[in-house]
Amino acid sequence: MEPYPTGSAGNTIDLGFAQLDVQRAARTGDPEVVYGEGKTPAQIVSALRALHAAHPDRAVLATRLAPAALARLAEELPAAWLDEAGRLAILGTPPAPVGTVAVVGAGTADLPVLREVAATVGVFGAGCDEVVDVGVAGLHRLLAQRDRIAGADAVVAVAGMEAALPSVLGGLIGVPLIAVPTSVGYGWHLNGLTAWLAMLNSCAPGVLTVNVDNGFSAGVAAARIARRTARP
Amino acid sequence: MEPYPTGSAGNTIDLGFAQLDVQRAARTGDPEVVYGEGKTPAQIVSALRALHAAHPDRAVLATRLAPAALARLAEELPAAWLDEAGRLAILGTPPAPVGTVAVVGAGTADLPVLREVAATVGVFGAGCDEVVDVGVAGLHRLLAQRDRIAGADAVVAVAGMEAALPSVLGGLIGVPLIAVPTSVGYGWHLNGLTAWLAMLNSCAPGVLTVNVDNGFSAGVAAARIARRTARP
Amino acid sequence: MEPYPTGSAGNTIDLGFAQLDVQRAARTGDPEVVYGEGKTPAQIVSALRALHAAHPDRAVLATRLAPAALARLAEELPAAWLDEAGRLAILGTPPAPVGTVAVVGAGTADLPVLREVAATVGVFGAGCDEVVDVGVAGLHRLLAQRDRIAGADAVVAVAGMEAALPSVLGGLIGVPLIAVPTSVGYGWHLNGLTAWLAMLNSCAPGVLTVNVDNGFSAGVAAARIARRTARP
Amino acid sequence: MEPYPTGSAGNTIDLGFAQLDVQRAARTGDPEVVYGEGKTPAQIVSALRALHAAHPDRAVLATRLAPAALARLAEELPAAWLDEAGRLAILGTPPAPVGTVAVVGAGTADLPVLREVAATVGVFGAGCDEVVDVGVAGLHRLLAQRDRIAGADAVVAVAGMEAALPSVLGGLIGVPLIAVPTSVGYGWHLNGLTAWLAMLNSCAPGVLTVNVDNGFSAGVAAARIARRTARP
Amino acid sequence: MEPYPTGSAGNTIDLGFAQLDVQRAARTGDPEVVYGEGKTPAQIVSALRALHAAHPDRAVLATRLAPAALARLAEELPAAWLDEAGRLAILGTPPAPVGTVAVVGAGTADLPVLREVAATVGVFGAGCDEVVDVGVAGLHRLLAQRDRIAGADAVVAVAGMEAALPSVLGGLIGVPLIAVPTSVGYGWHLNGLTAWLAMLNSCAPGVLTVNVDNGFSAGVAAARIARRTARP
Amino acid sequence: MEPYPTGSAGNTIDLGFAQLDVQRAARTGDPEVVYGEGKTPAQIVSALRALHAAHPDRAVLATRLAPAALARLAEELPAAWLDEAGRLAILGTPPAPVGTVAVVGAGTADLPVLREVAATVGVFGAGCDEVVDVGVAGLHRLLAQRDRIAGADAVVAVAGMEAALPSVLGGLIGVPLIAVPTSVGYGWHLNGLTAWLAMLNSCAPGVLTVNVDNGFSAGVAAARIARRTARP
Amino acid sequence: MEPYPTGSAGNTIDLGFAQLDVQRAARTGDPEVVYGEGKTPAQIVSALRALHAAHPDRAVLATRLAPAALARLAEELPAAWLDEAGRLAILGTPPAPVGTVAVVGAGTADLPVLREVAATVGVFGAGCDEVVDVGVAGLHRLLAQRDRIAGADAVVAVAGMEAALPSVLGGLIGVPLIAVPTSVGYGWHLNGLTAWLAMLNSCAPGVLTVNVDNGFSAGVAAARIARRTARP
Amino acid sequence: MEPYPTGSAGNTIDLGFAQLDVQRAARTGDPEVVYGEGKTPAQIVSALRALHAAHPDRAVLATRLAPAALARLAEELPAAWLDEAGRLAILGTPPAPVGTVAVVGAGTADLPVLREVAATVGVFGAGCDEVVDVGVAGLHRLLAQRDRIAGADAVVAVAGMEAALPSVLGGLIGVPLIAVPTSVGYGWHLNGLTAWLAMLNSCAPGVLTVNVDNGFSAGVAAARIARRTARP
Repeated sequence: MEPYPTGSAGNTIDLGFAQLDVQRAARTGDPEVVYGEGKTPAQIVSALRALHAAHPDRAVLATRLAPAALARLAEELPAAWLDEAGRLAILGTPPAPVGTVAVVGAGTADLPVLREVAATVGVFGAGCDEVVDVGVAGLHRLLAQRDRIAGADAVVAVAGMEAALPSVLGGLIGVPLIAVPTSVGYGWHLNGLTAWLAMLNSCAPGVLTVNVDNGFSAGVAAARIARRTARP
Repeated sequence: MEPYPTGSAGNTIDLGFAQLDVQRAARTGDPEVVYGEGKTPAQIVSALRALHAAHPDRAVLATRLAPAALARLAEELPAAWLDEAGRLAILGTPPAPVGTVAVVGAGTADLPVLREVAATVGVFGAGCDEVVDVGVAGLHRLLAQRDRIAGADAVVAVAGMEAALPSVLGGLIGVPLIAVPTSVGYGWHLNGLTAWLAMLNSCAPGVLTVNVDNGFSAGVAAARIARRTARP
Repeated sequence: MEPYPTGSAGNTIDLGFAQLDVQRAARTGDPEVVYGEGKTPAQIVSALRALHAAHPDRAVLATRLAPAALARLAEELPAAWLDEAGRLAILGTPPAPVGTVAVVGAGTADLPVLREVAATVGVFGAGCDEVVDVGVAGLHRLLAQRDRIAGADAVVAVAGMEAALPSVLGGLIGVPLIAVPTSVGYGWHLNGLTAWLAMLNSCAPGVLTVNVDNGFSAGVAAARIARRTARP
Repeated sequence: MEPYPTGSAGNTIDLGFAQLDVQRAARTGDPEVVYGEGKTPAQIVSALRALHAAHPDRAVLATRLAPAALARLAEELPAAWLDEAGRLAILGTPPAPVGTVAVVGAGTADLPVLREVAATVGVFGAGCDEVVDVGVAGLHRLLAQRDRIAGADAVVAVAGMEAALPSVLGGLIGVPLIAVPTSVGYGWHLNGLTAWLAMLNSCAPGVLTVNVDNGFSAGVAAARIARRTARP
Repeated sequence: MEPYPTGSAGNTIDLGFAQLDVQRAARTGDPEVVYGEGKTPAQIVSALRALHAAHPDRAVLATRLAPAALARLAEELPAAWLDEAGRLAILGTPPAPVGTVAVVGAGTADLPVLREVAATVGVFGAGCDEVVDVGVAGLHRLLAQRDRIAGADAVVAVAGMEAALPSVLGGLIGVPLIAVPTSVGYGWHLNGLTAWLAMLNSCAPGVLTVNVDNGFSAGVAAARIARRTARP
Repeated sequence: MEPYPTGSAGNTIDLGFAQLDVQRAARTGDPEVVYGEGKTPAQIVSALRALHAAHPDRAVLATRLAPAALARLAEELPAAWLDEAGRLAILGTPPAPVGTVAVVGAGTADLPVLREVAATVGVFGAGCDEVVDVGVAGLHRLLAQRDRIAGADAVVAVAGMEAALPSVLGGLIGVPLIAVPTSVGYGWHLNGLTAWLAMLNSCAPGVLTVNVDNGFSAGVAAARIARRTARP
Repeated sequence: MEPYPTGSAGNTIDLGFAQLDVQRAARTGDPEVVYGEGKTPAQIVSALRALHAAHPDRAVLATRLAPAALARLAEELPAAWLDEAGRLAILGTPPAPVGTVAVVGAGTADLPVLREVAATVGVFGAGCDEVVDVGVAGLHRLLAQRDRIAGADAVVAVAGMEAALPSVLGGLIGVPLIAVPTSVGYGWHLNGLTAWLAMLNSCAPGVLTVNVDNGFSAGVAAARIARRTARP
Repeated sequence: MEPYPTGSAGNTIDLGFAQLDVQRAARTGDPEVVYGEGKTPAQIVSALRALHAAHPDRAVLATRLAPAALARLAEELPAAWLDEAGRLAILGTPPAPVGTVAVVGAGTADLPVLREVAATVGVFGAGCDEVVDVGVAGLHRLLAQRDRIAGADAVVAVAGMEAALPSVLGGLIGVPLIAVPTSVGYGWHLNGLTAWLAMLNSCAPGVLTVNVDNGFSAGVAAARIARRTARP
């Protein structure tokens, strides 16, 4: 098999403003996604429709949607499922979930990112268990959920401020753990740099990280781990 | 079962300069590790010996060892296996490997970190396949190894400079992928900040990251993913 | 000839709010340009008109135009060619193109900067070949265009996020290569600092860089290289 | 009383290289301290001796002493008490302790700073209870000491890496709490910036902070709080 | 006594969007607070009402309230006391003040943060003495208030720009001193980083700090010190 | 004479929101100034009126005025002279100018800061000679003005971008030279940090600097130098 | 032709510690280079010898050589030409120069980087004209060399401190211009960040940049431009 | 007169490694200076000797001399006056002082920079009055010297840590004031960035600044101000 044919017509859809990579599912197991930032609502509708046509049997996803884009999608693609908090749209039926990802959030201000993780996990084929508002300032809230979290196939911890949550979690469980820093804080936190640095310097071994507020990338990775781990 | 007994004597070994957490294997599946930085050679020998005594049937690990610490270990714990490049020591027999981690390095200057990943993976119970010097400036070197890498249960990509390797890899495979930035560069790279920022901003979805040069944490996470994924 | 006469009247046009440097074309081969940021629409119209009068046989350029400035230009200088995406205006006839610059963009969000490069290249006297949406997450899209890019006299690679594109390109071709970082990203990217650092730390030798989003300066340099290279 | 006489002879001792502020104890309740950095061993001996002569009934302190300074002090001021880990010297008898400061350390690498806190607390007139190696990666170690810490009049928490310790402590107790970030880490932590940012962004209310590794200033403040709180 | 029961129903109120920690007053002596940023006006009203119901005999506090939230509170909880400058709301009767906190401000631009300190001090049970506009550029204004400040049980110094105030104060008094940097400046001050760095590098020993503009945390700490110090 | 009487009534005017320092002219030779940022239009009017009443024979100044403040001043203090570009107001008659300050600007975008310098120089008692748009990209424009600039008693150079102007000037003249960096640039310049760093690293000896865009402080210093230099 | 065969044996030499990319000259027109940092002297000798064997008719280059590596090369490869200032080694005969690169240095402290540029230019096939110590603090030195510089096919400007040189040069000539920032300064310049920022913010259009002290990359790019421009 | 002759032989001395700018005294009033960093002892001796020959009737200066350079100068130029603390050498007779510069230092650790200021002031033709160890933590020490400082023609304030000294001074006197930040601190102060930022954000108007530890540039500027101010 020739994996990287150059110039062949079949692996790209030319939308004028974008070259959709319809070969990605074959290469990586998951279809391309529409990244909403910097695209007009019309471009987003057009790209999501084209992605769906190329993967009729698999849900496709659009992320980082501004309110105007969400409104346009509601009008032109009424079959799409929209999540305003997570700023996402899903078109088509998600796969049956394989494995479970526990998505653990430190505070209520972290909810939008937590929603981005959860929706992505579903589209990428794993189940999701949301555990909210269990930050370390009230430690008993987290300890009460320890066994539930430890039973998942992968864990995503979402936290802002000083982001102590993943370090505490990392000392309590051995499940693969991804930490998502959020741009939530009370003063000078450099738009989430503090949480990010804290997660990368965790004293608990094996804590993995993504960019600030990047629930999408964490969701992709967690779903991949969970569905491989749990495959029959 | 009472998971967090306070004050009980059985879960901590008091070495005077440290409280060894011998309960960690029960909590997280893997024993504590001796972190060498800031400890004297004598403290490292003493801690490694105590850890080994607490886990006689499982290899234990010491990381970030200065040359003086490695020399002291060679003398006082001749049964230990030492890796000078990775600055690690292993005492006891590693578990039989379950699953495989592909450890992919961009350049020869990244080798020390790649060795830290590889040795850690072994101690934490997975097999390791090292793929070296396949940076993107000579793309054919990486493409030639694509199928080998895609066949692993988890992938760790080690790269410095602009760290393009994980982005290119992330577009070619769907295996869980951890990127380790290294403090290797040709000018002003802020001790690896450039590679770190690049990895966290990867255009490929699902790229996970650890701190600069932190091969240990990447190895822990990769081994956990691999041995869960591959469990029979 | 006395190249730096002091105080002579002929080399500057005094607009009150600005001293137009009408001697620049004689010194450097290209006329001065109107930089729109921080100027009122009326000032921009006045400056562009004066520049045009001083160089009647050569197109003159205005960059970084706010919507209000573009609207005012459309009204008062209907002969000007306006590019809303690139935020540019051109007044007068561009020179016949000498040589070709390939302008290569990683993603659709990079298009505005790519347009700034392309329009500048034209005004500064070279031809332009635009290659869009060929980021490294779908490597086959770039490989398919390799020969087309390698045939240019100069290449400008426009990319945000981790900016791996110029490193991959730099390993595939030997044409002079200018990388333009863009302020496009998915989280904490410091307004393009990540892309900038990545380009300056490219593992491919000979990658040249300009400031974040500075398509104008890249276009000037690329056009100068192309038209010298290709001169008969 | 004239609180700020200018030019009067009685409130300053001129050592040539320094003006000792012998009025400070009257103004603030505690005598001046010799800051060792940037002073020669001879200057340190001379300054400490002069301070002692000015406060014969009260211990005086020198901080941040290089090994050469400690050696010189051992030789010339044999009555001084030296702490090599804390890099401090004390000359004269410390006051009888009033109140208790709990000094809590996350890891063994934090011990030097913890020692600076402890010695300073003593010289400034409070008692000290050291609780070591109770980082959050093994949470049970900290929970086991909770009541002991809660019984103090002030708490100083010393931690590096991601510095989660004060946030967890701040949710468990209501005692005035000072967090000291240390320059201890496993990768890119900017010489303690990570710990510092984390402490300043703690989700637990009322966490106070000092500069990285500045155990001295934390000790001064904690002793002042403790001895006021506990005064009969 | 079992201090950290897991899963028990009595210590948390589930509001759907948040888990109120009603056990905090028992653990730390003060009830939880509603942090307004990132919450809708409706959520803030609901959370403040629930907190008040759980602590009927003790004032509860909401901070960082946007104008819309303040308006909603005025309408739905008319019993609440609102402070627009400090962006705070208080519901219920504050405790009788024990001890006094002097809150000292450098300039008029620092007033909003000074108000946040003062209101918090009251809710957390101490008295407050406000000393405004005594920056060091007119030193006599500060010197005139020296004795008044020195008589407090704790001092909070609020300052922006170069933040020299706490250093000067720290040399004049021995009362526990907390410095709050504000994001006030005349040019490039990095949103208060300058003041923050200055306070952390104070040449006066024992200066404690919180995050930029974080009057709340300073108020909590100062009140705790004052009411312990002054207890009969 | 008693220079720092504490508590005396004569040296401060209490406006409620501010303590006007009416003793400053006696101490430093120039009256206090109203800094507009963070003050309401009403506060600004009130403060400027009070300052004027305290110094009836000397112009007083208000800086950093928002459009609303300028409008309010135009209405309530019609005798005030307003400079919209410089965002300043002057009330009362400026002193007769002693000495001359040359204020040299690199580009048209630097004009607002240049105006702040010029107006301040006048209020603080020196004459001002404005030399605009003489940036180094067209070197002949600057060389043509060299003698004019060299004849001043002090020079203020205002420049953004790479801020090469003061370095070139510093090699051409020996007059005291103050460089003001401006937040003007074409890409990633960190709000003027680039210009600031460049000025502080000037290869020409004796270049003095103030904060970004701080034309006021430069004007104060330049006027003081000029009027001392030129005093008969 | 199949440009990216995967797995074929002919395009890589396996040295154990490195995979030499011997296909690079075919792809980009220039052979691979040995980057000395992080390699042992023995590895450098071995890699340079292998590169030379693969390109017997073309000079090959090793950069960033420590003194120990230079000494080892002098011993084992006596035919190599060594440049201690530029820390380079050349093995084999450089190509006949095509075109000329003017390498312009601001100060004597910039000489090492200037030498790296010059040697690289020669190995990559162009001629080099070195113009030293012409910084802008003595402008006449630069103006005296203007015509000589303007006659080159490409210009490399090497400067530290505030790096005004390329901006001044960019206003005087229209030749393609590459600026190399150096880590030379008099105080806080962040290891060359100042020069780097200044060059990227140059007010002269078309200034291209490389990383701090990266004379090698500038030399590669300049040689490519010069030899294309001047080709017959 | 032709001020910028290009190519004329008389205004530069070619030392091979440097082009001495012997025209500078004519242009700016003061001769060029030898900057020692990055030059060998032999180069420094050679440059200083050449400068002296070109200005036989005027002292010339070399700065930032390493111990090896000072030793070589002592040997080869015994007539030179050496200042080891200030790392300076002076050859020839300084001008008779005109005017006085008060150089005020905050602490003993600031002495080396204070010496650089003082020696430079002398060579550039003004008198110097040193006032040491008057930091604000003991305010009475500074107040006692207020009148002495206010009587100078220019003031240089040298301070590290939080650098409150110039702000306090700036409120007490109206003399032109230059603040020199030093790289002196107790923790994370970014090599003097804290002091630098503080000085640039001073609440006292008219504070001028130079780079960290750059006593030379401050001395040049202060001397120029003083000797102009005081000229008969």
